[in-house]
Amino acid sequence: MAQKPSIPKGTRDFTAEEMARRNYIFDTIRQVFNLYGYRQIETPAMENLSTLMGKYGEEGDKLLFKVLNSGDFLRAADPKLIEEGNTARLAAQICEKGLRYDLTVPFARFVVQHRNELQFPFRRFQIQPVWRADRPQKGRYREFYQCDADVIGSDSLLNEVELLQMIDEVFHRLGIRIAIKLNNRKVLAGIAELIGEPDKLIDITVAIDKIEKIGIDKVNEELAEKGLSQNAISALRPILEINGTLDERLQQLATLLDSSETGSLGVEELRKVCDTTASLGIRAAIDLDVSLARGLNYYTGTIIEVKALDVEIGSITGGGRYDNLTGIFGLPGVSGVGISFGADRIYDVLNTLGLYPDSAAASTKVMFANFGDKEAEASLSLIKELRQAGISAELYPDQAKLKKQFAYADALAIPFVAIIGENELNQKQLTLKNMNSGEQTPVAFGDIVSKLNELL
Amino acid sequence: MAQKPSIPKGTRDFTAEEMARRNYIFDTIRQVFNLYGYRQIETPAMENLSTLMGKYGEEGDKLLFKVLNSGDFLRAADPKLIEEGNTARLAAQICEKGLRYDLTVPFARFVVQHRNELQFPFRRFQIQPVWRADRPQKGRYREFYQCDADVIGSDSLLNEVELLQMIDEVFHRLGIRIAIKLNNRKVLAGIAELIGEPDKLIDITVAIDKIEKIGIDKVNEELAEKGLSQNAISALRPILEINGTLDERLQQLATLLDSSETGSLGVEELRKVCDTTASLGIRAAIDLDVSLARGLNYYTGTIIEVKALDVEIGSITGGGRYDNLTGIFGLPGVSGVGISFGADRIYDVLNTLGLYPDSAAASTKVMFANFGDKEAEASLSLIKELRQAGISAELYPDQAKLKKQFAYADALAIPFVAIIGENELNQKQLTLKNMNSGEQTPVAFGDIVSKLNELL
Repeated sequence: MAQKPSIPKGTRDFTAEEMARRNYIFDTIRQVFNLYGYRQIETPAMENLSTLMGKYGEEGDKLLFKVLNSGDFLRAADPKLIEEGNTARLAAQICEKGLRYDLTVPFARFVVQHRNELQFPFRRFQIQPVWRADRPQKGRYREFYQCDADVIGSDSLLNEVELLQMIDEVFHRLGIRIAIKLNNRKVLAGIAELIGEPDKLIDITVAIDKIEKIGIDKVNEELAEKGLSQNAISALRPILEINGTLDERLQQLATLLDSSETGSLGVEELRKVCDTTASLGIRAAIDLDVSLARGLNYYTGTIIEVKALDVEIGSITGGGRYDNLTGIFGLPGVSGVGISFGADRIYDVLNTLGLYPDSAAASTKVMFANFGDKEAEASLSLIKELRQAGISAELYPDQAKLKKQFAYADALAIPFVAIIGENELNQKQLTLKNMNSGEQTPVAFGDIVSKLNELL
Repeated sequence: MAQKPSIPKGTRDFTAEEMARRNYIFDTIRQVFNLYGYRQIETPAMENLSTLMGKYGEEGDKLLFKVLNSGDFLRAADPKLIEEGNTARLAAQICEKGLRYDLTVPFARFVVQHRNELQFPFRRFQIQPVWRADRPQKGRYREFYQCDADVIGSDSLLNEVELLQMIDEVFHRLGIRIAIKLNNRKVLAGIAELIGEPDKLIDITVAIDKIEKIGIDKVNEELAEKGLSQNAISALRPILEINGTLDERLQQLATLLDSSETGSLGVEELRKVCDTTASLGIRAAIDLDVSLARGLNYYTGTIIEVKALDVEIGSITGGGRYDNLTGIFGLPGVSGVGISFGADRIYDVLNTLGLYPDSAAASTKVMFANFGDKEAEASLSLIKELRQAGISAELYPDQAKLKKQFAYADALAIPFVAIIGENELNQKQLTLKNMNSGEQTPVAFGDIVSKLNELL
């Protein structure tokens, strides 16, 4: 036998059992997105490299999967680059296309390209795979799905409120207990301003992001290393130490950032989002986290992060407001806010907690055993009736040993097996075996639909 | 403004309207697949080129999109090939991976790779995009979806019967009237045998496949050119001229092919499939077509092709039985039979005939106009109730001019707009405007769910 075939590292096959579970997650998310008036779009897997390059930083450019031009791809290649072994520049000459690295840049491209056909505010969602030439490791894949919802062309904070409601609803439906952390880029800017280091915003947020892990003293050491004055570090301390209820902390933050116009605006935005969300009622705990800074270079207002309460795993959903998504493609001044569900991590959380409902099993409800041609034909008639009634049913197609047929039903977790042998055929009744309890019940042919409706 | 961004030729963006229609098609197919006990799997977009190369003929190898190796891709490249400009061989050295060209080869790879985890017979379906570097033209894309269902590990003809039932059910649900054409590779082999030209099977089928287009005389000319004797051509004629009902034609074919064991077996298989299908009841017309030969090198038994009756377009579904799908990966002797729905052509047929149901419109059912903060908050409470009742609803997020808000609802085909101004807020009632009729109805806040349930 030839060598067993394999797939590229970092990619996955999904078996029927895995697909049923993944579909359960995607369907749940899709239903909530639809309920909130978000509309699904799809973009091609391949984008022009000119669309993708330079959008994810130098490191990101390296992680793009590039698609070799068809035909004589060397024609456009500079021999000097080949000689020098300058593969980075050469790649750009022999590849015009690349695989989608995320859903955000293609979405921005989509909005600019279709702006005359779109209605703004544009609420869109997108559930598609993305590809990254990252080093594969546990929980990190080279092909994985993203589930993004964004609304662009509106700067109303009610959009943030709705996105929080959507997060709350999705995880409620999935049965996952979560905490939502909020911050605001303007608050971070206000803090940097307040302590007199407005240019060190990134160093500050990178450092304080680690406070839970390494403690405030180590954070202060790191800030000193980055060149922050002791004055600045001392001024930062009370901000990191605010405490009490959400309301109390927002109040303390407002007082501390009173002198910064930007910072005050940030606190005000946070308060409006928290108050409106609370007044509408939300199940998840919402918390302020001034150290939260995800995608800092990108977000300009609200920042959102979701953690599972019962499983140790990174963020399972994140998002925020950006003011210039489409600027990179020449359409400035379009504000948007969005969230992204991490389907692979949500999958892991549901597996860990065993939270899949029975409906997330890919399964025929009843298999008819095959005793031969005549019995099979009678079975097919009954199976037709069952399917018309919406009950998934199948005939074991071959007249194999009964043991093998039952093993098949067992392995596929099919809950009922219908047996029609010669006797049953003559009496126009079948024996219905419950594969869990082993119980066998005689059922007249005419009663099979109602009987299974009753049992399922 | 910068140059308007674009996407690679032959690829497509799908807008919300298009996605709603595509989802309607995919959901319909998926539901029928599930009802028949077929289980969904997914495979990665990228496969190792060693899996793909040589499986689609020389032309197919050229049409594979190849993914450039990450990092120093020149390392493995033979400088001589670069010098010679031998891009075909060079591509294989600088690319290890390629994009899926169809779902069949990855499925065969999946079966061999996972054979110890799978239950046979294995009924699987798969709905995923494939990529081909074909010259783009009307109706031919470089990225398009395939929807395949196959059962492998069973040679029972009941599988063929079920696949025909599935085809019938899918198109019934979609409202598309179809004709199903059947043939059998063994019949074609029997014909070649009968006329004494068993080695010219392919030439014969290629020629007679054109009979509807060019007529029997031109077909005979072509056969003569291919080196068939006049005796053979004369012997072929009666087979091409069989007529009458399906039963009569099967009978004539049986008589004509009586001397060929293979041919007789083929007729017997066709009869068994047609008889069993008919006895179970099927809506579509099933027809015998001895000139049908799709994928001849591949199919070994039943051959299936579906045409739409009311639109001039190529085959919208096809399939057949193959006896050695997994042989290419070293697992011989696994028989299978499958069908593939052509989603893009089905999309075109539904568009041409205007057959989409209202449910295939991506639409919020009711939009609440935004008159300001207080009104918006009241709206959000009502919207929450509606969503809890499963009614898709949204608030226009900004306090824009009413004309703009209504234009938005109109453009998105949202059927109802709810108006809550200051008066309405005081009276705790809203005005519900039917966007089709223009009719306006006052509705108490407490009655909005029941009112919309009644209207939708």
